[in-house]
Order: sequence, then C-alpha cells, then structure tokens
Amino acid sequence: MALLTKPIVHFPEYKVTQDEMLEALHDLFPDYPKWEVADKMIRNSEVDQRYLSLPLHEVIKKDRQWGEKNEIYRQMAIKMIVKVTNHVLDINHMKPKDIDMIILTSSTGFLMPSLIAYLMNELDFRNNTIQIPVAQMGCAAASWAINRSFDYIKANPSHNVLFISAELSSMVFQPSDYDISNLISDTLFGDCVAASVIKGHPKSGDFGFQLDAIGSYFKKNSIDYIKYDVKNTGFHFHLSKDVMNVVEELAPHINALIFKEYGIYAKDLNFFLFHSGGRKILDSLEKCLELPENSLRHCRSSLRHHGNSISSVILDIFDGKISSQSLQSGQKGMLLAMGPGFTAEFSCGHWLVF
Amino acid sequence: MALLTKPIVHFPEYKVTQDEMLEALHDLFPDYPKWEVADKMIRNSEVDQRYLSLPLHEVIKKDRQWGEKNEIYRQMAIKMIVKVTNHVLDINHMKPKDIDMIILTSSTGFLMPSLIAYLMNELDFRNNTIQIPVAQMGCAAASWAINRSFDYIKANPSHNVLFISAELSSMVFQPSDYDISNLISDTLFGDCVAASVIKGHPKSGDFGFQLDAIGSYFKKNSIDYIKYDVKNTGFHFHLSKDVMNVVEELAPHINALIFKEYGIYAKDLNFFLFHSGGRKILDSLEKCLELPENSLRHCRSSLRHHGNSISSVILDIFDGKISSQSLQSGQKGMLLAMGPGFTAEFSCGHWLVF
Repeated sequence: MALLTKPIVHFPEYKVTQDEMLEALHDLFPDYPKWEVADKMIRNSEVDQRYLSLPLHEVIKKDRQWGEKNEIYRQMAIKMIVKVTNHVLDINHMKPKDIDMIILTSSTGFLMPSLIAYLMNELDFRNNTIQIPVAQMGCAAASWAINRSFDYIKANPSHNVLFISAELSSMVFQPSDYDISNLISDTLFGDCVAASVIKGHPKSGDFGFQLDAIGSYFKKNSIDYIKYDVKNTGFHFHLSKDVMNVVEELAPHINALIFKEYGIYAKDLNFFLFHSGGRKILDSLEKCLELPENSLRHCRSSLRHHGNSISSVILDIFDGKISSQSLQSGQKGMLLAMGPGFTAEFSCGHWLVF
Repeated sequence: MALLTKPIVHFPEYKVTQDEMLEALHDLFPDYPKWEVADKMIRNSEVDQRYLSLPLHEVIKKDRQWGEKNEIYRQMAIKMIVKVTNHVLDINHMKPKDIDMIILTSSTGFLMPSLIAYLMNELDFRNNTIQIPVAQMGCAAASWAINRSFDYIKANPSHNVLFISAELSSMVFQPSDYDISNLISDTLFGDCVAASVIKGHPKSGDFGFQLDAIGSYFKKNSIDYIKYDVKNTGFHFHLSKDVMNVVEELAPHINALIFKEYGIYAKDLNFFLFHSGGRKILDSLEKCLELPENSLRHCRSSLRHHGNSISSVILDIFDGKISSQSLQSGQKGMLLAMGPGFTAEFSCGHWLVF
C-alpha cells in the first residue's frame, strides 16, 4: 500500500492580485499590439491572485540574466524546503531518519547538486536516503512523483517517501518577452512549496489517499504544447492552444485504468484531484470525463486563489479537499496532472483513515 | 531479477588528444599564472584522448551564451539518442513497444520536455511508457539509474527498462573561465551517448550483470566537492580536492552491502565497474577497498581512451569488460558511481548467461 498523507503547503509572503499583475504587465509591454485579446484571455483564466517569493517590482526587474535568477532561486528555495519539510515531518510525528527516499520536483531553477543535497545538509536524514531530483516534468511532476512512489513502495513495502515540490515561478517571469504565451504565463503561475509523506505502512491515526493503480500517457508530436524555450534570460514558458484538444484523447485512457481497477468510470468516482493548469483544461476534463457538476470545485478554488504553482498544485488541492472535510473513508477518487511531453500521469485510489 | 544487459556505447566523431587539448588551453588562457602546476595535474590525470561532438575550434569558441549552447546540445543529443536506442534495441531483438520505462540521464544541457519526449516522437514506444528524465545526478547518474531500475523491476517483475545516458561535455567547456577546476574539467571530460536494456525477465541468449543488492550514500556538507556553478555562460564545473578524502569514509558502506549479501568483502569480488571520475579517485578506491592489483584496469582504460563521460562511463567500462571476455557466469562483481551531493550509488551482482 502507498498512502499519500496530509500535505503541508506553504505560499510565500507577497500576494499579487490579477489587477495588480495586469497593471504591471501593461506598464512593461505598452507597445503590445493585442492587449484587448490578451486582457480578455487573462480575465477568462479565473486566476484572482497568486503568491510570489519577491515583491512584484523585484520579480519584473528587467535585464536579469539566468545566472542571477538561478542564484536567487537557490537561496530562497533552500529556506522554503527546510521549513516545509520540518512542518510535514512534525505533523507525521516523524524524524528525517524515518524517510527512505526523497523525491523533489522543481522546474523553476536548475542546480547540481540538486535541492535535495541542500536539504540533507540541513536536516538529519540517513546517509543512505535515496535522492530523486526531477526538473523536467513541469506540471505533470506531482502526479509523476506520487506514481513513482507507488512503484517504489510496492518494491519496499515498509518504506516512506518524502515528496517535496518547490516552485518559484517568479524566477520564470520574463519582463522583456512580448510573446502572448509569456503574458499568459506571467498571469497564470504562482509560487509554492509543498510536501507530503507517502507511507508504505501507515500508523494508527494516519489518513489520506490510498493509491490503488497508476497510469502514464504520452502524446506523440506534441513537444510544442507545453515547453520551455531555454534562453540566456532563463526559461521562457510556451503554451500552445493545441493542448486543449489532448484531453479528448486522454480521457479513454483514464477511464480504462479506473474501469480495470474498479469496474466503474471516472464519472462514478467521488473526488477528483486534477492539476489546475488553467480554467479551459479543467472545463475540458469535466466535459470529456462527463463529470458531475462542481466535481472540480476544489481544483478551481486552488487556481483562483493560488494560480498554477506547477508541481505543487496537486498537493494544494488535496489540502483544500482535506480541509473541507468532505472526504469519507472508502470513497474513491483520482489524481491527474498534465505537463510537458505532452505527458499525463494519473492514478486512482480511495480515501483511507487508518 | 534485474539484468543489466550488453550496452551500446557511441562516441562522436571528433577525437582530441590530450596534447591537442593542452595546446588549445594554453592558447585560450595565456595569462594563467600557474600553468606549471596545471600542466602537471593534467598530465597526471591519465587521460590520453576523448571524443567531442564538435570540432575543437567550435567547442572552444568564446562568447557563446547558454541559450545557444543548449540549442546545440538539443539538436545533437536527439540524433545521438535515437541512434543508440535503435542500436541497443536491435541487439536485443526488441521493439520500442517492449520498453516499459525509459530513464535518461544527462547533465550537460537542460530541456523541458526532456530528451525522452524527443526520443518518443522519433520511435514507436507505447504511449504508457514511463519517463524518468534526470539532469542533476551528474557522474553518479548511471549507477543511480541502474539502482532505480532494480527497485522498479522488483515491483514490476516482467518489465524492461531502457537506460540511456546522453552526455555532451563539449557544451560544458568554458573557454573564458580561468578557474583551475575549469581547466582540469576541460581536459578530463568527454562526450558519449550510451544505452542498455535492464530486463526483468531475460530471454534465452541474454547475458549481463544480474543485480543482487543496491545501496546509496550521501555525505553531509560536501556540496562544494562536485558541483556546477550556474552562470549566463552555462554550467561551470567545480571540483574540490576534498572529494579524494571521501572514499575512505565510503568504503565501509560498500563493504557492508557486499558482506550482507554475500558474506564477503569488496576485495573478494571478481570484477569492479567503477565510474572513472579521475585517476586519483580510482587509486583511492583501490587502496581503501584493498583491491587486488589491476582490478580497475578496464576503468582506467575507459578513462585513458574516452575521458570522463559522466553518466556514460559505467556503460563504457561494462562494454569494455564484456569485450575482453574475461567474465564468467556466476562471478560476483560490483558497480559504483560517485557524483554531486556528494552522492555515491552502488550495487553488487553477478555475471549471468541466460
């Protein structure tokens, strides 16, 4: 068994509303020729605000090259992952030495050694703790990490995996990039650091999402759907409209996994923890999987209040769902995150109180 | 069971001898104040030559920023991984659809989506193939990938993992960096792309290294031992002398794994596939593990003829060992690679002809 337990989700201190962000973008890109279209798209995204690790005037500072950005990322991310790790271990009454594997996903900076080495310097993990640093799975990374934990725990049934997501989207803000994708991403992404322990042998009092089956999906010839252009100024996010069409193709694969495991379809499940990549993607998932109305309200709420925080989103939605106390033992649900490749990672499981 | 089968190892076309490299470096850094010391260190490294993906005059071209380098990396790496994958599947009489998981390690460029997505566009892998792209494990990555495959196959006993290493060290060459670490790395690293299939259920005729047990080791407060400084010009390799001292500390952990599995020590094994990070590291391993003379001759030969090709080295040494036909069924041996963190990944196993 692999139990995804209650996550800890930390947002940084600088709240920026969509109005403030739009105002800053209009100032940065006064000559952008299609503001009317862009404004409409951005308003339609249903993001009201997000949290950033630096004040907005710092985030939008021009002429920051990649080396400088990455160093800011390094310094801020270390502090944030230590904090979130201490917190999540505390609520689990665990010590660092109880962790057998650390998976850390972060697509907003690049370090070698990875952030895991910095974390293991700060806290007393065992020296044989396995490190899984992943920087290239983007928005698919949370569900990816949880799926990899499922396989790892299948092989090592009594082990515990610490999953940490560290996304400082502020560092991917590109104040000189007039591309429409860039404008959209500036208003879509937010910063977040989150963590959860995935347990092979839960203890009395533990509760969470018990994974039953996992799946992966890759679509050919879709590199341009979601990608970074890597430039001297760092990572430039690029999103294609075509990504909207992929959900129709993906839906049968999701239903096949659930039918094989439970003999029912996605629409019959009780809860849905879907990466909130954007409003349209959620609409499309709701439609293609024929979900009952309001099934994705926690996903939409996460998007509205926190933006898309990349590999942290799934844990944020899960936390929101737990806080709402709407989950009951035995209820079945699913996890889904989609990202570059195009790649989707998904799983089905049930709510378990141990 | 997880069987690491015969690898395919491809070196690019431009052979550069150590004399040619030293001459180029003297031209690039005429004002370097300690050439006498550096020359001696470089000569002592026992690297005679390496292969590069571009002619030397292209590799040492100044003022190339990171964006441009990374685009060259992308274009060259795609061609090389397609070639090596076709080749390794051919010798295994396998099709892409027979692969359940792809682990691709590459620390010499950064892409999102990763190189795995590009590979899956070119060849007909199943759309549920699992992607494990890892960029942050450096020289530890080969043994890391093999160890992760061990756990994955333990959970999914009939599955096959395709492990690909793609290292274009040419792209980490820094023609304007006067640091001694940089000079050493320019003369140490080489380019290589390699692949091997790790099989859960080998077929008649298969042979290779059958993994029996795996281990990981992390040393605290050793971030500076082996690292990249991330700058606008890309990745600047940094190596500290302190890394030499870590082997003494690591040796008991290696011996503990082997003793637990076989009741013997490393010195009693028949063969050793050790990442050839450099001559001194190999000397230190030989001493601290009390290995018989000449135990590491294949590792030293790989270093001499191909330089340190990061996550490709282990497969290169394995290939050399297989070619020498010195392995006999049932003989016990071990794998070890060390890299940033400081992190070591190791395993013990035996030679198996199926």
